[in-house]
Amino acid sequence: MLKGYNLVGQKESSEGDQFLQVFSTASGNLLPEKFAIATAAEIDEAVSKALAAFEIYKSVTPEKKAVFLEAIAEEIMGLGDALIQRAMQESGLPEARLLGERGRTTGQLKLFASLLREGSWVEAVIDTAMPDRMPLPRADIRKMQVPIGPVAVFGASNFPFAFSTAGGDTASALAAGNPVVVKAHEAHLGTNELMAGAIKAAVEKCGLPDGVFSFVTGPGATTGMQLVTHPGIKAVGFTGSYKAGMAIFKAANERETPIPVYAEMSSINPVLLLPEKIQQDAAAVATMLAGSVTLGTGQFCTNPGLLFLIGGTASESFISELKDKLAAVQPSTMLNPGVCNNYYESRQKMSAQPGVNTLYLGQRGDATYKGASALFQVSDMDFMSNIALQHEVFGPSTLLVACESEASMQQAVQCLHGQLTGTVLGTINDIKSFTTCIDALSSKVGRVVYNSVPTGVEVCHAMVHGGPFPATTNAHHTSVGVEAIRRFVRPLCLQDCPPELLPDALKNDNPLGLTRKVNGVYTSEVI
Amino acid sequence: MLKGYNLVGQKESSEGDQFLQVFSTASGNLLPEKFAIATAAEIDEAVSKALAAFEIYKSVTPEKKAVFLEAIAEEIMGLGDALIQRAMQESGLPEARLLGERGRTTGQLKLFASLLREGSWVEAVIDTAMPDRMPLPRADIRKMQVPIGPVAVFGASNFPFAFSTAGGDTASALAAGNPVVVKAHEAHLGTNELMAGAIKAAVEKCGLPDGVFSFVTGPGATTGMQLVTHPGIKAVGFTGSYKAGMAIFKAANERETPIPVYAEMSSINPVLLLPEKIQQDAAAVATMLAGSVTLGTGQFCTNPGLLFLIGGTASESFISELKDKLAAVQPSTMLNPGVCNNYYESRQKMSAQPGVNTLYLGQRGDATYKGASALFQVSDMDFMSNIALQHEVFGPSTLLVACESEASMQQAVQCLHGQLTGTVLGTINDIKSFTTCIDALSSKVGRVVYNSVPTGVEVCHAMVHGGPFPATTNAHHTSVGVEAIRRFVRPLCLQDCPPELLPDALKNDNPLGLTRKVNGVYTSEVI
Repeated sequence: MLKGYNLVGQKESSEGDQFLQVFSTASGNLLPEKFAIATAAEIDEAVSKALAAFEIYKSVTPEKKAVFLEAIAEEIMGLGDALIQRAMQESGLPEARLLGERGRTTGQLKLFASLLREGSWVEAVIDTAMPDRMPLPRADIRKMQVPIGPVAVFGASNFPFAFSTAGGDTASALAAGNPVVVKAHEAHLGTNELMAGAIKAAVEKCGLPDGVFSFVTGPGATTGMQLVTHPGIKAVGFTGSYKAGMAIFKAANERETPIPVYAEMSSINPVLLLPEKIQQDAAAVATMLAGSVTLGTGQFCTNPGLLFLIGGTASESFISELKDKLAAVQPSTMLNPGVCNNYYESRQKMSAQPGVNTLYLGQRGDATYKGASALFQVSDMDFMSNIALQHEVFGPSTLLVACESEASMQQAVQCLHGQLTGTVLGTINDIKSFTTCIDALSSKVGRVVYNSVPTGVEVCHAMVHGGPFPATTNAHHTSVGVEAIRRFVRPLCLQDCPPELLPDALKNDNPLGLTRKVNGVYTSEVI
Repeated sequence: MLKGYNLVGQKESSEGDQFLQVFSTASGNLLPEKFAIATAAEIDEAVSKALAAFEIYKSVTPEKKAVFLEAIAEEIMGLGDALIQRAMQESGLPEARLLGERGRTTGQLKLFASLLREGSWVEAVIDTAMPDRMPLPRADIRKMQVPIGPVAVFGASNFPFAFSTAGGDTASALAAGNPVVVKAHEAHLGTNELMAGAIKAAVEKCGLPDGVFSFVTGPGATTGMQLVTHPGIKAVGFTGSYKAGMAIFKAANERETPIPVYAEMSSINPVLLLPEKIQQDAAAVATMLAGSVTLGTGQFCTNPGLLFLIGGTASESFISELKDKLAAVQPSTMLNPGVCNNYYESRQKMSAQPGVNTLYLGQRGDATYKGASALFQVSDMDFMSNIALQHEVFGPSTLLVACESEASMQQAVQCLHGQLTGTVLGTINDIKSFTTCIDALSSKVGRVVYNSVPTGVEVCHAMVHGGPFPATTNAHHTSVGVEAIRRFVRPLCLQDCPPELLPDALKNDNPLGLTRKVNGVYTSEVI
């Protein structure tokens, strides 16, 4: 039974007299449950509890934090079908996708648990004393990463599990030793309550302090901003629109004490379709791309929204294939009315841009909240002269940029804004002859994908789900994969600390068995 | 012979008709040389050249970059006594200090050269493909750090060598593979020109592209801002005042494409004087602290400006010792008239704050630009209720906070703003009984120093010269030590990249012999 509360630490709290409800695009109805908007006092109490919990949680052992993350994963599985059913209603996403996403979410929690047990993520660096150095002795200097304090997490509409309440931001912040206050996503408030219940139960089971986890409900512009501007919040993780992300970034920078905002916002994920590949494999490439463009109704951050190719006969036949493949995909339900209406409006704007040809435009029809695919085309010159063509169309739409030559393709790529991904579809000959173009692409993106599609972001050690602005507000980090933990730590240096007071990670006998940098050399040996 | 030019890539350029001159606090005179303020066109050309140079320099081999850094160090030594003499005139700093600082500067360049040869700073992470994984195969995913593009560097007045033209920001940005455009510090324009000449010669000798290094002269509010807001600049390194640092931070965040600003700004470096230590060692502690407070006329970022101690007889005798030791230090010349006048004004403001007792106030006297030391005292309650007491007094002054008890000391520490350093002077008994207080201190600082002084920042692997705001604008980084390089790189991920096109750092056979994280395990083995 959903109760519609906020979670202020371990306390279920509904002090306010304003409520939100969720509209289901799957059923076309407003769902009956009412969710209380958090009052200013509730938000303040959640952050105060997080600050108090931090004083304990920051020093909890890696093993205990690992067990906690695993307990969350277990509690999520314990929610069973109720979670899946609610998420289907709230997000319009199909069951298979949500089962997969649940696996990704629990897998992510377990991966962070294994990272904590391995331990080297604290980046221990030790320079031992040189008492006899001339002209001055060197002190004993050691450093490691430490947690920063309460983190505010804003979930994404398009991943109700993996990028939301118990998603990657929460998992990485908790793994680092920081309490989390989630701003519940307005489009999946029931899913949020269920997920939060799982975390609450894990906090209880693991005997962790009240305040390690809270969530608050309300609109981004009020509740979200109250959270971001609260002095007790030390960093923000966000996945969503450019507009909302930049509002948070601005507010965070204008605080008396600015805080880092890790916002993943806007990416159109350019694809280079190189000529030999198109000549050899037009049908296969078209099938693969049509699948990626329409996957999840095009509602992925890494959806390929821009296809660069060089004109000619082969490209004509490829375009015709792509059009057919897109037309053959049945429209599917979009996440919420806002996303759906915005998709059809953005598509409309795209088709009205100078020089844009509409090659295929699936109709919205009666199925009000289904996203039908679209294919547009523009010349390289028109693309380069019109910044509006780089606005993300969030949904199953893509824009072909027909380039005159390799040189103009490179120029067009150089005009690109920062992106999460850039994809190269080419034979080895293509790749070797387009190195300058690929190099230009690399400078714009966080991840270069060869001969595959950008959708499908592996949760692993080497993943970078990030990239130059406006893809994110901080190109130095990733929000997917274990290195996401780096966003929520800072280095602390200890000089001549009495040996018995050193944290385990920095002790001479290396009780955690970490790989450390000792006097400039990586080693897992004792000192 | 100083010529007063800007360096636009390798070109000496003086297009403007406005000039700056340097006032020497050492001689009390305006120095005769005129330095041309860069025109907007010169600034633009310097950045354009940097962007063009980046396309080549980003791919230069580690060995070649190492040789370049070493060549800069060699050219600096080749400047000989002319450099030292000019810096003495411009900064008022004594010869011995500048000889030491030159050693630190060349040592820093050589340390980055050794980092490049070792190579693991690129943080290579490799997850190998799992073609048979169910339900979906895993791609081959590899990542490493790559340079970001042209970096603007603002030198510090208090380190004309080590934190200026060829200082740590420049060394780390160049080591990472980024061109640098320096905004020459107005107080040591001749020193800057000499240092820049050394870099220019090294660029030439090493056959590196025109534009890898430039400098522009002019006021921070105009020339500096033109540089920060230039679209070609990708990051900023700054050391200086809170006011200037925040103006840069604001401008950088308000750009169409915001960029990171690594500003090291303001720190008063609290010291906890614990009771048993004071009882046992009052005289020695007083001598050590008086030395640190007055070192370099108190013009160090890590100058101890705040001393917490618990009242009682022992503390009375310590205070009396400290007063005597400070009074015994001969006032020395300050960096420039601005710094000196500001010091005496800040001291004046401090003495006028409610509850502040002036225990010692060395007189300015006739020696116009010498900084005489000062010692103030305030109660814990007055300290906690007055934020003005946390304003940095840049010079040889310190404020004693007399605490009622351990509890009130802890409360006072919790009121502190972010700091570069926090120092603990205590016996092992003291340290064990003040753990809560020391823990509170640790959460406010980048470096905790035990039983030594915060001045003297070792350039090594484990150093953190950084800390929570307002000590810096980015607590996740250090501006001293090899990890300073991290500020100027970002991760780039390659998915299913053809093996022959992988960068050396990510190749299976590990030709650079790096320590890498392969499928979650640190190793220097081949794959």
